[in-house]
Amino acid sequence: MRPVIKVGVLGARGKVGTEVCRAVETAQDTELVATVDADDDIEELVRAGAQVVVDFTHPGVVMDNLRFCIEHGIHAVVGTTGFDQARLDQLEEWLADAPGAGVLIAPNFSIGAILMMRFAAQAAPFFDSVEVVELHHPDKADAPSGTARRTAELIAAARREAGSDPMPDATSTGIDGARGADVDGVRVHALRVRGLVAHQEVLLGTAGETLTIRHDSLDRVSFTPGVLVGVRAIADHPGLTVGLDSFLDLE
Amino acid sequence: MRPVIKVGVLGARGKVGTEVCRAVETAQDTELVATVDADDDIEELVRAGAQVVVDFTHPGVVMDNLRFCIEHGIHAVVGTTGFDQARLDQLEEWLADAPGAGVLIAPNFSIGAILMMRFAAQAAPFFDSVEVVELHHPDKADAPSGTARRTAELIAAARREAGSDPMPDATSTGIDGARGADVDGVRVHALRVRGLVAHQEVLLGTAGETLTIRHDSLDRVSFTPGVLVGVRAIADHPGLTVGLDSFLDLE
Amino acid sequence: MRPVIKVGVLGARGKVGTEVCRAVETAQDTELVATVDADDDIEELVRAGAQVVVDFTHPGVVMDNLRFCIEHGIHAVVGTTGFDQARLDQLEEWLADAPGAGVLIAPNFSIGAILMMRFAAQAAPFFDSVEVVELHHPDKADAPSGTARRTAELIAAARREAGSDPMPDATSTGIDGARGADVDGVRVHALRVRGLVAHQEVLLGTAGETLTIRHDSLDRVSFTPGVLVGVRAIADHPGLTVGLDSFLDLE
Amino acid sequence: MRPVIKVGVLGARGKVGTEVCRAVETAQDTELVATVDADDDIEELVRAGAQVVVDFTHPGVVMDNLRFCIEHGIHAVVGTTGFDQARLDQLEEWLADAPGAGVLIAPNFSIGAILMMRFAAQAAPFFDSVEVVELHHPDKADAPSGTARRTAELIAAARREAGSDPMPDATSTGIDGARGADVDGVRVHALRVRGLVAHQEVLLGTAGETLTIRHDSLDRVSFTPGVLVGVRAIADHPGLTVGLDSFLDLE
Repeated sequence: MRPVIKVGVLGARGKVGTEVCRAVETAQDTELVATVDADDDIEELVRAGAQVVVDFTHPGVVMDNLRFCIEHGIHAVVGTTGFDQARLDQLEEWLADAPGAGVLIAPNFSIGAILMMRFAAQAAPFFDSVEVVELHHPDKADAPSGTARRTAELIAAARREAGSDPMPDATSTGIDGARGADVDGVRVHALRVRGLVAHQEVLLGTAGETLTIRHDSLDRVSFTPGVLVGVRAIADHPGLTVGLDSFLDLE
Repeated sequence: MRPVIKVGVLGARGKVGTEVCRAVETAQDTELVATVDADDDIEELVRAGAQVVVDFTHPGVVMDNLRFCIEHGIHAVVGTTGFDQARLDQLEEWLADAPGAGVLIAPNFSIGAILMMRFAAQAAPFFDSVEVVELHHPDKADAPSGTARRTAELIAAARREAGSDPMPDATSTGIDGARGADVDGVRVHALRVRGLVAHQEVLLGTAGETLTIRHDSLDRVSFTPGVLVGVRAIADHPGLTVGLDSFLDLE
Repeated sequence: MRPVIKVGVLGARGKVGTEVCRAVETAQDTELVATVDADDDIEELVRAGAQVVVDFTHPGVVMDNLRFCIEHGIHAVVGTTGFDQARLDQLEEWLADAPGAGVLIAPNFSIGAILMMRFAAQAAPFFDSVEVVELHHPDKADAPSGTARRTAELIAAARREAGSDPMPDATSTGIDGARGADVDGVRVHALRVRGLVAHQEVLLGTAGETLTIRHDSLDRVSFTPGVLVGVRAIADHPGLTVGLDSFLDLE
Repeated sequence: MRPVIKVGVLGARGKVGTEVCRAVETAQDTELVATVDADDDIEELVRAGAQVVVDFTHPGVVMDNLRFCIEHGIHAVVGTTGFDQARLDQLEEWLADAPGAGVLIAPNFSIGAILMMRFAAQAAPFFDSVEVVELHHPDKADAPSGTARRTAELIAAARREAGSDPMPDATSTGIDGARGADVDGVRVHALRVRGLVAHQEVLLGTAGETLTIRHDSLDRVSFTPGVLVGVRAIADHPGLTVGLDSFLDLE
C-alpha cells in the first residue's frame, strides 16, 4: 500500500479550494494537513509537514507561493491561471536550484476532457470523417467553446501529420450554417440548450462503422479527480510540467 | 385473432416492391396473393382476391393503378411519389363513387421518423430550448435534410401556437456557422460522416433536465413496418388519407 | 397577454420550496405574494390574495393546508408525498363543497420524465423490441429505479392492449444478468456510475430503424418547470387531479 | 507520395473477398493485380507481381496459401480463422527462413472496435466506475457478446494493474439481473433490439464527469478500412504479427 501523502491547500477557502480540501480529506491515500488562505501564514505548510501543495489562488500571489514551495522542497499542483512564458521560465530557473522538487501547471484538470481530446486526435487518422459537437447551457458567450476549437485543431494536426485525405462532403445546396463552423478543416457544431452543463462529442466514421467519444461534465467538482492524479504523481515528476496529460500514463 | 389480409403488390419486382413482398409474406396476419409488375396483367389482383394493394411504382402509371383498384373495391396503400393537389382531387372524386374503398398516400413510411417528428412537436412548448441535429453519410447533397427542415418547422409552429418565448442564446462571439442553420427560429445542425446512414436527434431542454428524441434509420427496409401498419388499418379508413400519421393511433 | 398569477408557497424555506419561490419570482407570468413555513401564519395566504398555492411540506401537515386552501377558494399544486386513497377521497369530499377550486396532487413534476414515459408507451406497439436502460449515481439503493419499473409496466400494458407479439430474443447462452431484469416482459438495465445524476433511455426497434427516447435529469431544479405548468393550468381544472400528465396538453 | 501497393486477393469471390477487392480497387494507393479463388492457380499471384496478399479463405487451405506467399516473398494480411498456437509456431518457423516477409493474422479488422477496447482499457484506471453496454439484433445467440466480454476483461486487468479501488455500488434491493452480468468485476449489459446491427458503449465516470466511448458497426464492410491499414503497414512489419492493434500507431 502506498503511504499517505500529506497535502496543504493554498486558497483553501475559495470555491474551488473548498472542493479540493474535501476531495483530499475523502481520498484514502491523501491527508489534509494545512489549509492556507489570504490572511494565513504560509509557513503553516512547513510546520504541518506538507509534501504536496495544491494552489488555486490568483495570478497576483501564485508566483510568491511557488517560490516558497520550491525553496522548502514542497511539490506543487497548480490550477491558478495566468502563466505566460516569462513565468514558466522563472519557475524553471527556481527549480534548477531545487533538484527533486516538482511543479505541475495545468489549465484543465478534467480527466475526461483531456482523454477525449487525446483519444480523438489519436483515432482521427484512421477514419474518413471526423466532426465535433459541443453542447452547453445557453448563457455561454462563445460558440464554439474553447475546448471544441482546441479539439478540432488537435484532430486537424494529427491528420496533417498522417497525410490523411480531406474529409468527404458532397453538400451542394442548403442553408447557411447547417454544416457548422470550419476549424482548420474540421466541422464543429455548437448547441445551446437550457438544462445542459458542458458536453462534447467527437464522431469519427469510416466505411460501415463509427466511433464516438463523448465527455459530459455535470458538476463543478469534475476537476477534483484530476487534482488528485496530480497530487499522487508529482513526486515522481521533478522539474516543471505543463498540462496534466503527461501524468496520465496511457502507454 | 384477426383474419389474414390478402395483399397484392404493384411494382413487385422493383427494389422496394421486393422488400414489400418479403414483409407481407413474413407477417403472420398478411398473405401475398398477387405480384404485379410492368408487364403483368393488373386483373390478376382481382382474380387473386386481393383486399389491399401496395403500390410502389412510378408517377406515370400510379393513377391508372389506383382507378382500377377503386373501381374494384380494393384498398390501396401507396408509396409512389408525385401526388399534387390535382391528383389528390381526382382521387377524392373517384372515391366518392366507391364508398368503403380506402386509399392511403404516404410520402414517408418510416414509423420512427413520423413518431420523432410528432413527439418533438408535442414536447416543444414545454421546454425553453429545442435544437435539431441530423446526421447522414457524406454523399448527401442537401444540408440540412428535408426531414430536419420539416421537423424544425413543426417545432416552430407548435411553439408559436403555444405562445412560447424565444429560445435563450447568449452567443456573442464565435465562428460563422457554429450555431447551425436557422429554420424558422430553430437551430438545425447537419453532420456528414462516412459510415452513417440516416439519423436525427431532437434535443429539448429546460431548467435541470433535457429530453432527447432520436431516430436511427439503419437499413432501407425501415419502410416495411410502416407499410404493414397501412395494410392493416386501411380497411377502417375509407376515403382518401394523406400521411401515415393518422393511422398511428396515439391517443 | 395572460394576467399575472398570484402565488403563495407553503414550505417556502425548505430546499424544494426555496427553488419554487425562485422559479415563481423569475417567471414573467407569476408573482410570489406569500411565503409560509412551519412557524408562519397560514392566513397570510389570504391576506396576500394568493390565487394558487404550491405545497411542498410534509404528510403530517399537508391535509390541514389543503383544507384551508379549499375553504378559501385557493387552488393548490401539491408535491408533498403520502397521499393514499383515503386522503384522496377526503379531498374529493372537501372539493365537492367548493366548486371551482382545483387541487393537483403530483408525485413527479419532471416534464421530461412524464413525456418520456408517455411517448414510450405510445410508440411501444409499433416496434418489435423495446428495452429500458436507466443510469444513476452509485449511491442509489434500488435497481432498477422506480421510474424505470413504471415505464416498463406502461410499455407492457400498451403492447398487451394492442395485441403485440412477444419481443424477439434468440439468446441461448451467456452470463446471468446480461439481459437485464424482466419487468412484465420488458427488459430493464440499470447502470450505476459515479458522476451521473438520473437518466433513462427507452430504445425501440423494428426492421431497419430504431427510436430512442432519453431523459436526463441533471439538477434538482428540474421539477420547477413542471410546478409552473401546474400553477398556470390549475384554475382551468377544478376538482381533484392526480398526476401532472393530464395538464400537458398533447393532443 | 507513397508508391502504389500491388495487392492480390485470395478467396476473391467470397462475400468478404468481394468487398476486399472493391476496397483495394477504390483506394488510391493500392492496385488489385490478382484475384484468386478455389479453382484458380495461386501462381497467378507471382505472375501479377503481388506485393501483398489478402487472405479471407478457410482454415483448410490457409496454411498452404501462406507457405506459398512466404516462399515467394509476398506479405500476407490474413482474416481467415482457425489459428491455434501450433499454426502460429509453424508460421514463425517458415518466416525465420524468409527475412523481410511479413504475415499479419488478425481476428478482428474493425478499427473502431479495436480503438474502443484500447481507449476503454487506458481510461479505466482514472475513473471510479466503468460499465459496458452492448446492443445487437435479437437473432444473436450469446449474451453478452464476445467483444463485450473481452472489453470487460481488459478493463478489469487495467484496473488491477493500477491498483484501482472496487467500483462503488450501493444497490441493496432490486430485481435479479437489473445490474447486468458480472465479468471480472465489470458490469456488462446486453440489449437485443430489432433494427440494430452491432454496437457497444463503455461508460466511465468519476466525480462530476463521465466519458463515453461508443462503437457502432452498421455494415459488413466495416472490416475493409482495417484490411487496408494492414496492407499499407505489413511491409514495415517483417515476421509474424497477431492482431491489428500493433499496426495502429497510437503513441
